[in-house]
Amino acid sequence: MPLFDLPIEQLRSYLPDRDEPADFDDFWQRTLTEAAAFDLAPEFKPYDLPFTTVDVFDVSFAGWGGHRINGWFLAPRGVEEPVPCVVHYIGYSGGRGFPKDHLVWPASGYAVLVMETRGHGGANVGSPGSTPDPHGSASPQAPGMMTRGVLDPDDYYYRRVFTDAVRAVDVAAGHPAVDAARIVVEGGSQGGGIAQAVAALRPDVKAALIDVPFLTHFRRAVEITAADPYQELVRFLATQRDRADDVFRTLSYFDGLNFAARGRVPALYSVALMDDVCPPSTVFAAYNHWQGPKEITVWPWNRHEGGGGFQTEEQLRYLHKLLAGA
Amino acid sequence: MPLFDLPIEQLRSYLPDRDEPADFDDFWQRTLTEAAAFDLAPEFKPYDLPFTTVDVFDVSFAGWGGHRINGWFLAPRGVEEPVPCVVHYIGYSGGRGFPKDHLVWPASGYAVLVMETRGHGGANVGSPGSTPDPHGSASPQAPGMMTRGVLDPDDYYYRRVFTDAVRAVDVAAGHPAVDAARIVVEGGSQGGGIAQAVAALRPDVKAALIDVPFLTHFRRAVEITAADPYQELVRFLATQRDRADDVFRTLSYFDGLNFAARGRVPALYSVALMDDVCPPSTVFAAYNHWQGPKEITVWPWNRHEGGGGFQTEEQLRYLHKLLAGA
Amino acid sequence: MPLFDLPIEQLRSYLPDRDEPADFDDFWQRTLTEAAAFDLAPEFKPYDLPFTTVDVFDVSFAGWGGHRINGWFLAPRGVEEPVPCVVHYIGYSGGRGFPKDHLVWPASGYAVLVMETRGHGGANVGSPGSTPDPHGSASPQAPGMMTRGVLDPDDYYYRRVFTDAVRAVDVAAGHPAVDAARIVVEGGSQGGGIAQAVAALRPDVKAALIDVPFLTHFRRAVEITAADPYQELVRFLATQRDRADDVFRTLSYFDGLNFAARGRVPALYSVALMDDVCPPSTVFAAYNHWQGPKEITVWPWNRHEGGGGFQTEEQLRYLHKLLAGA
Amino acid sequence: MPLFDLPIEQLRSYLPDRDEPADFDDFWQRTLTEAAAFDLAPEFKPYDLPFTTVDVFDVSFAGWGGHRINGWFLAPRGVEEPVPCVVHYIGYSGGRGFPKDHLVWPASGYAVLVMETRGHGGANVGSPGSTPDPHGSASPQAPGMMTRGVLDPDDYYYRRVFTDAVRAVDVAAGHPAVDAARIVVEGGSQGGGIAQAVAALRPDVKAALIDVPFLTHFRRAVEITAADPYQELVRFLATQRDRADDVFRTLSYFDGLNFAARGRVPALYSVALMDDVCPPSTVFAAYNHWQGPKEITVWPWNRHEGGGGFQTEEQLRYLHKLLAGA
Amino acid sequence: MPLFDLPIEQLRSYLPDRDEPADFDDFWQRTLTEAAAFDLAPEFKPYDLPFTTVDVFDVSFAGWGGHRINGWFLAPRGVEEPVPCVVHYIGYSGGRGFPKDHLVWPASGYAVLVMETRGHGGANVGSPGSTPDPHGSASPQAPGMMTRGVLDPDDYYYRRVFTDAVRAVDVAAGHPAVDAARIVVEGGSQGGGIAQAVAALRPDVKAALIDVPFLTHFRRAVEITAADPYQELVRFLATQRDRADDVFRTLSYFDGLNFAARGRVPALYSVALMDDVCPPSTVFAAYNHWQGPKEITVWPWNRHEGGGGFQTEEQLRYLHKLLAGA
Amino acid sequence: MPLFDLPIEQLRSYLPDRDEPADFDDFWQRTLTEAAAFDLAPEFKPYDLPFTTVDVFDVSFAGWGGHRINGWFLAPRGVEEPVPCVVHYIGYSGGRGFPKDHLVWPASGYAVLVMETRGHGGANVGSPGSTPDPHGSASPQAPGMMTRGVLDPDDYYYRRVFTDAVRAVDVAAGHPAVDAARIVVEGGSQGGGIAQAVAALRPDVKAALIDVPFLTHFRRAVEITAADPYQELVRFLATQRDRADDVFRTLSYFDGLNFAARGRVPALYSVALMDDVCPPSTVFAAYNHWQGPKEITVWPWNRHEGGGGFQTEEQLRYLHKLLAGA
Repeated sequence: MPLFDLPIEQLRSYLPDRDEPADFDDFWQRTLTEAAAFDLAPEFKPYDLPFTTVDVFDVSFAGWGGHRINGWFLAPRGVEEPVPCVVHYIGYSGGRGFPKDHLVWPASGYAVLVMETRGHGGANVGSPGSTPDPHGSASPQAPGMMTRGVLDPDDYYYRRVFTDAVRAVDVAAGHPAVDAARIVVEGGSQGGGIAQAVAALRPDVKAALIDVPFLTHFRRAVEITAADPYQELVRFLATQRDRADDVFRTLSYFDGLNFAARGRVPALYSVALMDDVCPPSTVFAAYNHWQGPKEITVWPWNRHEGGGGFQTEEQLRYLHKLLAGA
Repeated sequence: MPLFDLPIEQLRSYLPDRDEPADFDDFWQRTLTEAAAFDLAPEFKPYDLPFTTVDVFDVSFAGWGGHRINGWFLAPRGVEEPVPCVVHYIGYSGGRGFPKDHLVWPASGYAVLVMETRGHGGANVGSPGSTPDPHGSASPQAPGMMTRGVLDPDDYYYRRVFTDAVRAVDVAAGHPAVDAARIVVEGGSQGGGIAQAVAALRPDVKAALIDVPFLTHFRRAVEITAADPYQELVRFLATQRDRADDVFRTLSYFDGLNFAARGRVPALYSVALMDDVCPPSTVFAAYNHWQGPKEITVWPWNRHEGGGGFQTEEQLRYLHKLLAGA
Repeated sequence: MPLFDLPIEQLRSYLPDRDEPADFDDFWQRTLTEAAAFDLAPEFKPYDLPFTTVDVFDVSFAGWGGHRINGWFLAPRGVEEPVPCVVHYIGYSGGRGFPKDHLVWPASGYAVLVMETRGHGGANVGSPGSTPDPHGSASPQAPGMMTRGVLDPDDYYYRRVFTDAVRAVDVAAGHPAVDAARIVVEGGSQGGGIAQAVAALRPDVKAALIDVPFLTHFRRAVEITAADPYQELVRFLATQRDRADDVFRTLSYFDGLNFAARGRVPALYSVALMDDVCPPSTVFAAYNHWQGPKEITVWPWNRHEGGGGFQTEEQLRYLHKLLAGA
Repeated sequence: MPLFDLPIEQLRSYLPDRDEPADFDDFWQRTLTEAAAFDLAPEFKPYDLPFTTVDVFDVSFAGWGGHRINGWFLAPRGVEEPVPCVVHYIGYSGGRGFPKDHLVWPASGYAVLVMETRGHGGANVGSPGSTPDPHGSASPQAPGMMTRGVLDPDDYYYRRVFTDAVRAVDVAAGHPAVDAARIVVEGGSQGGGIAQAVAALRPDVKAALIDVPFLTHFRRAVEITAADPYQELVRFLATQRDRADDVFRTLSYFDGLNFAARGRVPALYSVALMDDVCPPSTVFAAYNHWQGPKEITVWPWNRHEGGGGFQTEEQLRYLHKLLAGA
Repeated sequence: MPLFDLPIEQLRSYLPDRDEPADFDDFWQRTLTEAAAFDLAPEFKPYDLPFTTVDVFDVSFAGWGGHRINGWFLAPRGVEEPVPCVVHYIGYSGGRGFPKDHLVWPASGYAVLVMETRGHGGANVGSPGSTPDPHGSASPQAPGMMTRGVLDPDDYYYRRVFTDAVRAVDVAAGHPAVDAARIVVEGGSQGGGIAQAVAALRPDVKAALIDVPFLTHFRRAVEITAADPYQELVRFLATQRDRADDVFRTLSYFDGLNFAARGRVPALYSVALMDDVCPPSTVFAAYNHWQGPKEITVWPWNRHEGGGGFQTEEQLRYLHKLLAGA
Repeated sequence: MPLFDLPIEQLRSYLPDRDEPADFDDFWQRTLTEAAAFDLAPEFKPYDLPFTTVDVFDVSFAGWGGHRINGWFLAPRGVEEPVPCVVHYIGYSGGRGFPKDHLVWPASGYAVLVMETRGHGGANVGSPGSTPDPHGSASPQAPGMMTRGVLDPDDYYYRRVFTDAVRAVDVAAGHPAVDAARIVVEGGSQGGGIAQAVAALRPDVKAALIDVPFLTHFRRAVEITAADPYQELVRFLATQRDRADDVFRTLSYFDGLNFAARGRVPALYSVALMDDVCPPSTVFAAYNHWQGPKEITVWPWNRHEGGGGFQTEEQLRYLHKLLAGA
């Protein structure tokens, strides 16, 4: 059934209880503090393409554990004032792809920092990656990244990713072409889940653009969708039948609901009502918990592609208005 | 079997006979002459986006039969000299999508004219279209565009499309920002098949970039691939069991092999050895028949996605070199 | 879940609100009046088969826009009195097939006029067609017929089809072998949807046999079935994200619910409770709105095949009784 | 690959060795002699339908082991001379369906005897059956009928079926409306395989119409098709890994190649070049072995549907000519 | 949706009405009495394997109708006292497989009698069988065993199987190595359904281990699962549209709910909440009707694999405790 | 086509060139020497199950990098002399499962050491694992283990696994219940590939049992099978289009062909002719290169399940004969 989740009227007010560990904030403070011990060590290597209006850099910096995290940095060429910067996080399975994939931001007068999600990008033909995850796992895992280290919050894959993502904001802020007061975090699906977390952990960003976010409301997601990547969790739970409590305890430190409840910056969400990858109730649950100024675009007939280019144009207009006022 | 077609050594020299009707050139000359009766009537409406480095226009012009054909025109903002222009044709099922999808050319200092393929774009969620095909069909058809009018060359869908595509070159050439002596036709899959045809019909273009071209070597394609869109033809042949001769007669006027044999301009092809949509033997057949200066990039492990962004960067470098010399 | 729709008890009384445009009747009156400007111009060409008890004619007539619509006409040979005639409409994707496919009616003493649905029959190997739709589309469309012209009621594909279908009744009525007072419209799936519409637009038909009708209760259908052809609409809506209002406005002129609410002649419906192509709630919604004498056969364990030959025998008995009384 | 079998040029002359047991003829003579001990005991019960030009009977007779075999008998009503009769055998999984499904023969002036294939017809929604196979199996079997009793020729399912089928000719011949000198055996797929066998075992039939025959050239079939029902054999062989010799010994008594080599009556075959259920090489192997007058219709673009209604019309013309000359 | 059935809270108390024929007990008493006319005639042939700690026998005995039923008998070698014995019934499609597959019981100090389910084992590559069902069917059937004889309780396949299964307990009890007072019936899926029935029909067994049982709560099962083997019933009902009452009447004599309501011995059940083959509501319905001491293990994240080896270890501990107390 | 690979006659003599790096032996000597720096540190913890004839231990030892590798150790209880020991390696995706899964060896008088393949076992519901791979990857990877570290032989996943596997032989040899002179390595699919490698690296083992081995003849495998896990490599190559040379260089250090060419101990192989996971030509290529005494069992009708329990019984008989002679 295409409309498999709650009806839109109920979604608008769906505000489920959150499963939040008592030391949620401590966990993240400790995590980021530990990471701060590693120098950020950003590198911006000019990347040779016959572009005439955009400067492209092959970026890397030290993320969690000091591991090198790669990305792209693009900025409009020949601009004299520092410009706002979008920090872009990537969807599940993808790598940074190619500079050409990210031109919408410099064409609009912004810089963009594209951060790779470590360990992804090895099998997405449209979006190759270059950043490995040199950290293994202290527990067995299902193929994919969803269960790498899932038995222990300290060992969980997304602890490293969210830390990388917070530090990427610093990388952007430190570049001379960027106006550090106007940094926006942005992403779709996994990238949306990351942007949502970073916006909570870094309340100094200017705004968050969160499309069909993943990594949000795990409990419900694993019960109502049969699609990957949430199903990686189900496969693990089905196999490691005696470890469910550990899994859900770990996930509670990473659930988008708990980040949304700490979100204070302006946010533009989007959701698709036929999305069986990131079901609409999981998105609205986060949106309804978000504490800052917020808007949500609803795509009634779409699946996980959400609004696509329509949503990008919404975002351009939203940012244009928001940043003009800054 | 992933490597289902001929081995690469045989592909390099695969030069099948062509099935060419005696009046092939007459047919196309008559077709284009008839079309010339309609004024081109190009319109360039500024399209409002908060872009700062690129000008975007919602374009339309009179194609075959005087029907309005839509597209985008993007040009680097603030450039004083006319620039080279890429005329971009779109893959099967897609529409023109969004201006952001075509930024790679203006970022590289070129204008780009994106021409919609009439009748497509109604069901490709990533690439919406806006141009209908107001011409129906004088014969029954299978769903999709491959068999619309397939019983008669004059009524066949691609007669209209190729005519639109030739005229799109005129639209580009007529724009004041464009250097009419440096127009390049480009596309992948269906777009590659169209670019291949236009390069033969309009020998005044500067070059052709032809990725994994469709609409080429129909006879072999329908026998070795079980994938759409070539399978639309097979479904039609299986149903209209008594019309095979008519179908193949019509297709002979549109077969990429016959256009390739007339290709005189520099061409950069690409081919993927595991491509079951546009099998590599059909691509090499055309490439080997091409008469002009030519290069081909071979992607051994890819399917129809071909070289993706790798190939785009190849193209940028190829054009940069070619046009610099101009 | 095989029983995915409402339970049978609720189906029996399911009577949803209808979305009916104020000018519904005007629209159809205007449409049929405009069509009447074209002479019907029926042709009955004897079709050569070694049949001994049935006369077969290759039929055509001028439908909407004067376009030639093809079909078969079969009548029992050697009957002296005019006989009742079944006008048979065809399911989605099919053409008129072969005369042998329609022998049940002449074997039962009836003539049968089989009307092709324009544009179909090019890819259904069991049921080839011969009637094109020479009218294109004023808007982009998804592959298939469901969205051809869907942005404008005047341009919508089914406006032409329903008009053809109403005129087919005149073709039948005009044949000397037919008793014009005893014409029955009949069809399954798309054919059922057409029969339902014709019975409302031509209240002079004697009865309607409507099996698992399609084109009925669009709003609900697109939300609860993931199957084609209703999914053609969803693909279009998902792509043309900004045109939903136009789509539903157009569909309101063609929704079987609105025709059912005008149905006054005796009707025999059938429905299958596991039918995911034409879900049972959409069928009952129409049946419950039907205003004339009515019966419905419920097939609890079937999908879209419905009652198959069982239902045909039901229909033979139903007609036998109904027409005997006439 | 759609054209997965030999090219048509090789098919035309493909004449593989046959694996024929020394006692093939003895086996069948013994089998039919044993069956003859059971009185044929045909029953023709009028079946009540409001047909006006055709008489319909619910038929049964004693087949192998005296088991009752059901079918339909249809004859043109009111004909004074005995008419030719088609004995129709049914495809795999089907039952006799409905009288309406068989009207093409009485409409053409023939009687038709439809014989059910015992044990089928319980899961084919379009073609219900009524004849069980009261004989179990002396060996384990895979689901379906292909391996019931496959370890022993005497116990094999098709021994019973072919015997039933031979006796069905007697049933037809014994009906007063039938001209026993003009009986034609006919069928497609499994029905074609049965007709082929009967034509060899009953050289007094007038002709055989054999469409895309199944049960032919087992050795090759199981190696080149991944489709059911031949795959039932592969599943059995894969499971009962130590019984392959027994399986192939049994099959050698039932292989269509061995019947074809005994075929002396006029035969009209059909074959489809993309048929992955009954691959074309298996059909041509039989056709090329056939010893009588023969023709074959080749459908180049079809799969197992073969020629469909086109082929039926071929058959009508073929019989018309053949029987007119009788 | 992975969690497609009732929520766990409702499952715990789900106690649907049962559809029980008045003569249920008479039917089974008559059935077992009739079967008792055949001598049990067990044979234990030593099976030659280089095992050093286990004795293996190729077993057969006379089941329903005196038909030979095969299996394995394994017992720990060199034990002096009679040991408890597990009678193991097999899941749908499987045969007895190999002795190595059943070593867990002798390794734990028990004998095990593995009983084949007649007619299965011909197509399960992991679990070959050797026992045919020499009884055919008095009615047409769908492929598989679920509908063999389903129109008449006396002719239904599971009448023979359950009778075989009851007699297997006698076979075990009669072996000198076995302590007849400590026989446990055990199985998963179909094997669980059989064990459940035997435990009701043979209240002298010591316990029943019933995993994810099949053949239970047919009415609900056919409405909520689209998976085989329950779907064999739906295919039959969809085809034999007029026989539903007969089918459900037959099934009422075999429904696990009616056996569970007669269960008095200790039972250990298991259920998986995402099991779409044997949906959890059908399992809980039986469990909640069970009248004896009972426990159930719930596997929240599993499909039909249920608890797998985890559940086996549960069973070992459960039996160890239960039998120690004997 | 089920028989998609070379015909059996060609397979018997198929001896392709090997792609062997000059420092193959040095690489492995260095690898094993480095690993020897870590103390083996085996632990055997009794695992509590109510088994009466078998002792079960939860085993771990220090593998590559000193990482703890888990497994099971089972030995017949109460045996006074040291017994032969089978070292069992596990197929792709599986973990050690449950002790009950490995009883065939102690039942036959052997000990068995089951070694987990690090990092697997998180998503195979039938075979849970417990051993993580704490080593990440220095390069991006596709989901699964095939490409973890694939750009550098030193970093490649199977370097760690093969090292673990060699050391597992030492673990077995060091247990007092084991006769170190009679250790046999054994496994199927990935386990077969591992056993093949260990037999080459540890020529002191007594024999190798190698079923349908994986990790063998990579070049051909990735070209002729579309199945996982070989397809993990293709997905990586398709994405990381510029890294093919690095990938194949790395694989050359791990290719079973190169190990087979060093195999000197007696080996029993098995192969299945319809195996599309580990195609028969890749297996025969290794077998034909094997230098020691060898036998191969050919399963003509099987896919990757190979001989299943039939092959296990072959192995029992083979070992019984081989070890008896020792």
